[in-house]
Amino acid sequence: MIHSLTLSDVLAEHARSRPETTAVVDGEVRLTYPALDERVSRLADALAARGVAPGERVLWLGQNSHAVLELLLACSRLGAVCCPANWRQSADELRFVVEDLTPRVVVWEPSEATTAVQEALGASDAVWVRAGRAYEEMVAGGSVRDFPQVADTEPALALYTAAFDGRPNAALLSSAALVAHSASLLVVRQMEPGFTFLSSGPLFHVGTMMFCLATLQIGGTNVFTPAFDPEEVCRLIDAERVTQAFLFGPMIDAVVAVRPQGKYDLSSLRFVSHSVEWDELITVDDSPWCRSRMGGYGQTEVGGMLTFLGLAPGAAGFAGRPSPFVQVRILGPDGGEVPDGEVGEICARGKSLFSGYFARPELNAAKFAHGWHHTGDLGRREPDGTITFVGPRLRMIKSGAENVYPAEVERALKAHPAVADAAVIGVPDERWHQAVRAVVVLAPDATATAEELIGHVKGLLAAYKKPRDVVFADAIPKRGFTPDYDALDQAHGGGNYPGA
Amino acid sequence: MIHSLTLSDVLAEHARSRPETTAVVDGEVRLTYPALDERVSRLADALAARGVAPGERVLWLGQNSHAVLELLLACSRLGAVCCPANWRQSADELRFVVEDLTPRVVVWEPSEATTAVQEALGASDAVWVRAGRAYEEMVAGGSVRDFPQVADTEPALALYTAAFDGRPNAALLSSAALVAHSASLLVVRQMEPGFTFLSSGPLFHVGTMMFCLATLQIGGTNVFTPAFDPEEVCRLIDAERVTQAFLFGPMIDAVVAVRPQGKYDLSSLRFVSHSVEWDELITVDDSPWCRSRMGGYGQTEVGGMLTFLGLAPGAAGFAGRPSPFVQVRILGPDGGEVPDGEVGEICARGKSLFSGYFARPELNAAKFAHGWHHTGDLGRREPDGTITFVGPRLRMIKSGAENVYPAEVERALKAHPAVADAAVIGVPDERWHQAVRAVVVLAPDATATAEELIGHVKGLLAAYKKPRDVVFADAIPKRGFTPDYDALDQAHGGGNYPGA
Repeated sequence: MIHSLTLSDVLAEHARSRPETTAVVDGEVRLTYPALDERVSRLADALAARGVAPGERVLWLGQNSHAVLELLLACSRLGAVCCPANWRQSADELRFVVEDLTPRVVVWEPSEATTAVQEALGASDAVWVRAGRAYEEMVAGGSVRDFPQVADTEPALALYTAAFDGRPNAALLSSAALVAHSASLLVVRQMEPGFTFLSSGPLFHVGTMMFCLATLQIGGTNVFTPAFDPEEVCRLIDAERVTQAFLFGPMIDAVVAVRPQGKYDLSSLRFVSHSVEWDELITVDDSPWCRSRMGGYGQTEVGGMLTFLGLAPGAAGFAGRPSPFVQVRILGPDGGEVPDGEVGEICARGKSLFSGYFARPELNAAKFAHGWHHTGDLGRREPDGTITFVGPRLRMIKSGAENVYPAEVERALKAHPAVADAAVIGVPDERWHQAVRAVVVLAPDATATAEELIGHVKGLLAAYKKPRDVVFADAIPKRGFTPDYDALDQAHGGGNYPGA
Repeated sequence: MIHSLTLSDVLAEHARSRPETTAVVDGEVRLTYPALDERVSRLADALAARGVAPGERVLWLGQNSHAVLELLLACSRLGAVCCPANWRQSADELRFVVEDLTPRVVVWEPSEATTAVQEALGASDAVWVRAGRAYEEMVAGGSVRDFPQVADTEPALALYTAAFDGRPNAALLSSAALVAHSASLLVVRQMEPGFTFLSSGPLFHVGTMMFCLATLQIGGTNVFTPAFDPEEVCRLIDAERVTQAFLFGPMIDAVVAVRPQGKYDLSSLRFVSHSVEWDELITVDDSPWCRSRMGGYGQTEVGGMLTFLGLAPGAAGFAGRPSPFVQVRILGPDGGEVPDGEVGEICARGKSLFSGYFARPELNAAKFAHGWHHTGDLGRREPDGTITFVGPRLRMIKSGAENVYPAEVERALKAHPAVADAAVIGVPDERWHQAVRAVVVLAPDATATAEELIGHVKGLLAAYKKPRDVVFADAIPKRGFTPDYDALDQAHGGGNYPGA
């Protein structure tokens, strides 16, 4: 255990090393590191009294709150797992989460959906605790005591990820993985003590959670706000001298639209340049030794980010270079590395990787085949060694002996000026097993023939990847951001997929 | 193995991600990451052919060279251990190292001492390979092939440390520990891709090795020079656009004395301010978000640095705050934490810690007592949470039921203006078991009575720590930088130490 460092251990050290530093700000709540450490001990004791043994799960159903961090740290102290769930989901979706995760304790904020689920399942095995007063009573009822040491390889955090096999899966992240991912963020974003992060995105999403945890790691201050509200974001940046927040394009535009000039001082925010108005409000991070350029490639299963643009100035690859604490390989279906420049599946090993999904042994075996985590996403290693993310793999078309990835063909089709949207499916073919069929939405007032589009793809990709025919449609059915391939197959005769 | 990341894995990733980056510069030798990776594979194969199986040791007896990094990486690839030994030692000392470490392969540069040892032991079990041509022939004779995966918890590096129990001990550092320590340096020193490090200190010392490895971790360039030569350091900084080098006070003064103005451009060096002349030569790192202030507390057994001044701006503690990847506790002899402000032993846990000493099971059990690594050094937690390093523990005086640490009393004595040097021993005492005796060297032309000095200590420390008597001497015998307590005990009646 001499090498182990759990999230709970990180907190215990900060409580000694940073007795005066504010760890948490959330509305009226302000906690120094020692105060947070004490509350986490009480909470861990109270959770243990409610049956949360090592390996058991605690579920949070609510908006952002310092309670999410407290529950995660208390679970880490116990060797248990904390899951902040997407409270925006429907009652049916939330019910699936509760039944799938089988938590010992559920802390919930009332909403239409959570109330429905609580009414349906509240009498089950789990202890349901209302956020707010009941949660505070639970914390106050716990005792400060010593806990047995927990190995940092034990899962501490569970985050539900995309339903790529038809249902969401809870990715389990150990303390060791979360600490290693924080290390990568601390390095690439040059985070320092005094760093103050505003959780202006949802904590059930790794994009916000990873910054919250890196801020904890460096002994900074975490400011919580229930959900994104541009005016409140301005007020909090001003009041708490926030260094960074979870913000991207449309959110930044919403903040600018508040017209904070003269009302809120946002100069403490060190952020990338976005627009003239934005750049005047904040401190644009152009320090000579700064590499805070955002972006890269990531997913929950790698702890957040796998590759960083900031590690690849002037790179050819859209996704930059791998974090210093992982390895990336572009693998073919046989588990072998594909040559540079060719598309394969982005696979990874390293310190920040997840420990598999909760209660999905078969899926986990498939994801970790050949000793590498298979991200389910396609990518390419460029000649300069950087990584390009091509698109989600989802499914592969097998035409002759060749593998055709729809995402790659779709990207080629969309590069044609007449194409507004496109999706590619495989249709059964007696001779080639499958043939490539494109479903194309033309841009308004644009025209293009099937032959023209097929020729366009042939000019960009290997010939066997070009569609054999094209179906013109008014829209591509979607699941979130990606094509709904099941619907497309049904509508346009898809089938015969390898492994199906 | 999905979470494992050995030094060899780090190199394998860079060979893909940074195909054009120069990994190594050493005289005429310039290697890109793919070239280094290929040489390391050949070397690993060649070492395996010479009997270097997992867990076996490879010894380097020579000055700084890129071969040290190659041997370390090849050992990591094999699951073996590389030890760069202090080539400045006497033949007797080197002979102890060879006989203690029982290496399979010794790569050696001829010097008076190494030649004597080679002649004495060259016919033993180990294969002795001359650095230079014979080494190059060994590399060229190896094949590029796949190696079985190695767990990153396996030791990869051995560094001999101070002879605190009468003989030097080889501290074993795993890939996981070295990667974690590099993470701390990357964070605190804000190291970036493009970072170019000059090994101007000896690689057998963790202070230089840790920067070499952090530079590897971030995919930077390692420049090697056989030993510190101020003119050559200037030439290399200029020619290779070196970002940082291993330099401190007297070395910096020697570089300034070269008068590089107009001859060498040292502006690529980003370093702390030192003197007017120095600051004009280099780029003083005063970037607003930079925290490159050097210093802190460290030792080989923690991978290099345990605490960093840069993490504690304006701190009370001389040693700053712990790395983000460790925990520090100030423990008393019973293994319990002492209250803030009181002196105890600096103890640590965390990701960068060593795996024990090679072939020292009893010492290892003592060092890791109570689940914490005992550094053998005394320190104090200040009210602001920062750490002060008080001095080496070495031995403890037991007076009554109280523990008295010589280093603390010596520090108090030396604070008196009349005292040039001081050491404290314990002398047998019938009533109190031991009594405190001070041996004091007065400053030239200074006078002070024993009573005056005892009163001075009493004003600074708890009364039981004050010397009962004072012996005035012309000099304090030393072992390296610390008093030779055995000689002092012999000369001045010391004895009855606890545990003795």
